[in-house]
Amino acid sequence: MINLASDNVVGASSHVLDAIVAANTGAEAAYGADHFSSAAEARLAEIFEHEVKVFLMTTGTAANALALAALSPPWGAIFCHEESHVADDECGAPEMFTDGAKLIGVPGFAGKITPEALEKAIARFPKGVAKSVQPSAVSLSNVTECGTVYSVEEIARVAEVARRHELGVHFDGARFANAMITLGATPAEMTWKAGVDVVSFGATKNGCLACEAVIFFDPARAEHFQYRRKRSGHTLSKGRFLGSQLIAYLAHDHWVHNARHANRQAQLLARGLQAVPGVRLAWAVEANEVFAILPKAIASRLSEAGVRAAPWYESSVSLAPHETVGSDEVFWRFVTSFATTTEDIATVIATAAS
Amino acid sequence: MINLASDNVVGASSHVLDAIVAANTGAEAAYGADHFSSAAEARLAEIFEHEVKVFLMTTGTAANALALAALSPPWGAIFCHEESHVADDECGAPEMFTDGAKLIGVPGFAGKITPEALEKAIARFPKGVAKSVQPSAVSLSNVTECGTVYSVEEIARVAEVARRHELGVHFDGARFANAMITLGATPAEMTWKAGVDVVSFGATKNGCLACEAVIFFDPARAEHFQYRRKRSGHTLSKGRFLGSQLIAYLAHDHWVHNARHANRQAQLLARGLQAVPGVRLAWAVEANEVFAILPKAIASRLSEAGVRAAPWYESSVSLAPHETVGSDEVFWRFVTSFATTTEDIATVIATAAS
Amino acid sequence: MINLASDNVVGASSHVLDAIVAANTGAEAAYGADHFSSAAEARLAEIFEHEVKVFLMTTGTAANALALAALSPPWGAIFCHEESHVADDECGAPEMFTDGAKLIGVPGFAGKITPEALEKAIARFPKGVAKSVQPSAVSLSNVTECGTVYSVEEIARVAEVARRHELGVHFDGARFANAMITLGATPAEMTWKAGVDVVSFGATKNGCLACEAVIFFDPARAEHFQYRRKRSGHTLSKGRFLGSQLIAYLAHDHWVHNARHANRQAQLLARGLQAVPGVRLAWAVEANEVFAILPKAIASRLSEAGVRAAPWYESSVSLAPHETVGSDEVFWRFVTSFATTTEDIATVIATAAS
Amino acid sequence: MINLASDNVVGASSHVLDAIVAANTGAEAAYGADHFSSAAEARLAEIFEHEVKVFLMTTGTAANALALAALSPPWGAIFCHEESHVADDECGAPEMFTDGAKLIGVPGFAGKITPEALEKAIARFPKGVAKSVQPSAVSLSNVTECGTVYSVEEIARVAEVARRHELGVHFDGARFANAMITLGATPAEMTWKAGVDVVSFGATKNGCLACEAVIFFDPARAEHFQYRRKRSGHTLSKGRFLGSQLIAYLAHDHWVHNARHANRQAQLLARGLQAVPGVRLAWAVEANEVFAILPKAIASRLSEAGVRAAPWYESSVSLAPHETVGSDEVFWRFVTSFATTTEDIATVIATAAS
Repeated sequence: MINLASDNVVGASSHVLDAIVAANTGAEAAYGADHFSSAAEARLAEIFEHEVKVFLMTTGTAANALALAALSPPWGAIFCHEESHVADDECGAPEMFTDGAKLIGVPGFAGKITPEALEKAIARFPKGVAKSVQPSAVSLSNVTECGTVYSVEEIARVAEVARRHELGVHFDGARFANAMITLGATPAEMTWKAGVDVVSFGATKNGCLACEAVIFFDPARAEHFQYRRKRSGHTLSKGRFLGSQLIAYLAHDHWVHNARHANRQAQLLARGLQAVPGVRLAWAVEANEVFAILPKAIASRLSEAGVRAAPWYESSVSLAPHETVGSDEVFWRFVTSFATTTEDIATVIATAAS
Repeated sequence: MINLASDNVVGASSHVLDAIVAANTGAEAAYGADHFSSAAEARLAEIFEHEVKVFLMTTGTAANALALAALSPPWGAIFCHEESHVADDECGAPEMFTDGAKLIGVPGFAGKITPEALEKAIARFPKGVAKSVQPSAVSLSNVTECGTVYSVEEIARVAEVARRHELGVHFDGARFANAMITLGATPAEMTWKAGVDVVSFGATKNGCLACEAVIFFDPARAEHFQYRRKRSGHTLSKGRFLGSQLIAYLAHDHWVHNARHANRQAQLLARGLQAVPGVRLAWAVEANEVFAILPKAIASRLSEAGVRAAPWYESSVSLAPHETVGSDEVFWRFVTSFATTTEDIATVIATAAS
Repeated sequence: MINLASDNVVGASSHVLDAIVAANTGAEAAYGADHFSSAAEARLAEIFEHEVKVFLMTTGTAANALALAALSPPWGAIFCHEESHVADDECGAPEMFTDGAKLIGVPGFAGKITPEALEKAIARFPKGVAKSVQPSAVSLSNVTECGTVYSVEEIARVAEVARRHELGVHFDGARFANAMITLGATPAEMTWKAGVDVVSFGATKNGCLACEAVIFFDPARAEHFQYRRKRSGHTLSKGRFLGSQLIAYLAHDHWVHNARHANRQAQLLARGLQAVPGVRLAWAVEANEVFAILPKAIASRLSEAGVRAAPWYESSVSLAPHETVGSDEVFWRFVTSFATTTEDIATVIATAAS
Repeated sequence: MINLASDNVVGASSHVLDAIVAANTGAEAAYGADHFSSAAEARLAEIFEHEVKVFLMTTGTAANALALAALSPPWGAIFCHEESHVADDECGAPEMFTDGAKLIGVPGFAGKITPEALEKAIARFPKGVAKSVQPSAVSLSNVTECGTVYSVEEIARVAEVARRHELGVHFDGARFANAMITLGATPAEMTWKAGVDVVSFGATKNGCLACEAVIFFDPARAEHFQYRRKRSGHTLSKGRFLGSQLIAYLAHDHWVHNARHANRQAQLLARGLQAVPGVRLAWAVEANEVFAILPKAIASRLSEAGVRAAPWYESSVSLAPHETVGSDEVFWRFVTSFATTTEDIATVIATAAS
């Protein structure tokens, strides 16, 4: 079976696993006060070239929801793409963690918020008028839910709108490394230099077992975060498990290599599939995801050959205006990872083309 | 350094670690739909001799707070020992997850709720009177926060009061195995046969890296639980990591051996410390925790020798009425674990006695 | 000054005020156990020709948010028109009272949800999939935010979709009486006979001082409502104040007369304004609200003459596709009430036309 | 029938009612922007001799819960008497409005928190330790739930402890005027001069129909309060109804006269009852409440004569240590109000003594 339904269907990289095993000796203070966690924070400060406050946890849902809760009061409006992960795939976690803030879906092609669409969305919520929730934050996903990547300039332009309206800027980096590879930018350039306040720095999808970091560039924003993390049950007792994963992930450019590999496999897959008659791509392949519209005959052949992809939303509003999925077609997402082999990709393409 | 501050300052047992490593091959469905998670559920059904619905997660705080949220509406009263972990050590997680239920502290010697004290506490909240929060659940910790263990009969008597008042019964089993060893009872006898509805089945403190299970005996009570877990960010994407831990933990009586070992070390330590002039125990040592009142001179000696314990609450209301910690004394908790060696214990005792 | 900005800028009708004064003698049980409140419930049962559970409170925001909380769990999706009052004008009250449910805006011309648009919106939230909030309720405003009125058949068709997907149906009746007059239907026909489960029955805008009723047709749905009302601070101690208002409001067809008057004044105004060159109406005038697009010159004249209206959202998505507000135009809402005189209307029209 | 069960079983004073009627002409801006509401704020500034931010609403539960939400984050600990109204009689409203803060019951004779007991309670919650909710506010009821009154000095001493620990100080003044009469102090002396930050200024029990004011002395604390009030449904559309009540209540010392009258009637009643053999008072009668322990025979006589009082909590922990309610006794609360006549009191006493 070749499972490309997501980049979380594989386990951890052996490099990361080895580090967990190696970290398993001796006593360490509990609840995040261990040496591994503080070393991970120090390493992220180097990588981001900035003072940081880092909080480790096991899931991206928690990282996103906690980060948004740090940026928005219960009466806040949080702007995000209308098909973003925080809006659609977390069962209301942002609403739970913010105690009821409102996520405002902003439309946009290929999963991206434009400065113009953001301005227009913000305008619906007059500042200081009690009946209206108050614009508080914007959340960008990079890589987006459509597998596309905001350029540094695009991030900066959205953040500039946010800044003008005094919104905090959250960066959902579930696939941070994949976006970074595509951009050829430094972590600093992609984030605080472009106006980002808080990052959900994902590592699970790119080689860790379960490790995400919430990264603040301004310690004042992180002031109460330890209470939020604890009371939501996201402060692990054996914190070494998290810290050691992240240290290994960041060491020797392991995260860079993994993401580069995954992105390359996606390019290979995209090129191969596009060459198959009847297949077309919904969006540009800019990271490690390929969204393809396929004839049902090809889809059946792939399924029979043990290839798994994720059926996607045929009525997605992120599609180009003219695009529709025909009744004899399927819309599938393929996601490559650090573990996807060139043989796997070749098999998928060959099966599709056969 | 000999760190006995808690049973979570050590890592995982090598047995559990090996299982994680072994589980790390191939693709598995994400978000708890993996084979390891379902196998763990099946194994717990055998062990508890009952149909179960099992939800795995990484922290005890989450397990407790989610379980209580399944038992209590926002206007509910949840009865627990006034110095219980859910009341004192989770930064209000139960209040967050229940959307504002009230935890009612019930007093009692040595960390235990008595049926009489529970009856009295319930009586303060008249059923059907809108101004009053409504009695909804009782939460028992076994092992208790004082290191004592409820007998099966004690559990049943508390549960009987709960049943009469239509309260759900939650069992905080952060140290489930340690209590089980002491009781010489089966998991079934300790729980559903005694009237328990939901168990937070802890495995982290007894050898896992980060794994806790919420176990329901009545599927109806678990109906919405998947949404609660997801929206609180506690549904791991790479669920194999949790399932594999628990399977290894339960295999070959590994959990039994670990808990038996830890309990024995606590007995050794208790006996040794008690023999030291000036040292006395606050509560009976019934599991893997020793609460000792020590002369400051002895405490200093231990600290200098690199022995770490957790300073405890000198004004604890769970102490016997006559008991007080003198100004030249300290009140310390020592916790033993699967990893505590007999040499460690001997060193601690020898240092205290020297 | 002629203030037509809303129907809540006037006080109460003298009929209602008299009843409050008359109710002010003797002792009455507090917190809703008074005779006036129970008499109001009995009267509503007659009017709605159905067993009802009635809860009185002072604001429409509370009535809507509490009613929705009775229909939706925290992980629920509540479907409403994307420019509805619950979505836009209550500062997130539904999110607060439901503990974080998600309001899903459904697009539609003139403030109305169509069955097709509802179906499409529901389809985005797969039942039983944990990552997705779960479709739980639909909320219809009748009169809508655009001053239009759903026909009984339209209500029934939306409710039929809801029923098929097991959603509760909420009827935001802030202007219930105005809609009823237009429909020429009975309260029963507009609500439970058409598939409605819970009504926010507004009386404040149509002659009361501050009185709204949440009406349940199925007592099971109201089971916990007294706790929700109390814990949100909406259980008045001197309940006679609410009960007496509602009794007077419903007696001698007072509510009917008030609403008929208000609707007529709106028709007068609409006809008059439409006849003024350069003025056009955004939506059909079907109740007591007139949404007009006016040349700025006319608007200035009205302002100078002391006429007040409410500036409306020029970028409203409920407008017809071709409609836009020109740069030399304004978009204003005029609302008539029981207290609007024919002279007022004549003055407004004459001023506009002058 | 003579109903002394509470001071909210009577209606409004005719003075207040007249003002409501008088306010009922012409148009006024909605949602608290009316002239009556701003005049009420200005009048309270005079009375409190301080800049104030005032928010009017209809219930004391809302006033308390909203005020506490302004002082405490969701992870906060709010200290209050263990039998206070906020803890026992609001169905968890403070927990709902604070999004899950913890109310910590402080024990104390006769409903009062002492500085020592407060210090001891605060000590259980270490500052900066993530597992512990964080001390955030203290709430004092004056008049207390036992009908006693904190002296200005007592308030100041409690507030001094609060200040040292950086807690906000909330004053639950459901019976503010009754306490003021007893103290012979100015509103300023009782509140901000003694260290109080926010007052729930009750007017309903002392002559209004439904009117409570949340009063802030520091505008910074009120910064987001308009959103909190709106989203909890406590911003009345026809705000004139609230403003006019409060203006009339405060005019011509109406509130002073009402409270003085009520307090005097309580003194008369207390003296009369105490003279009846077998009757004793549980606490000093310092405002308008009499808590009496009565032989059942006398209680029956009163009930038969149509006298209503409120059965009180026989196991109240606020009772003196030696005090118990015998099996042939009842524990009743009698509350006098502006409307209680001297004849009523004489009848009650005569019946008890007969």
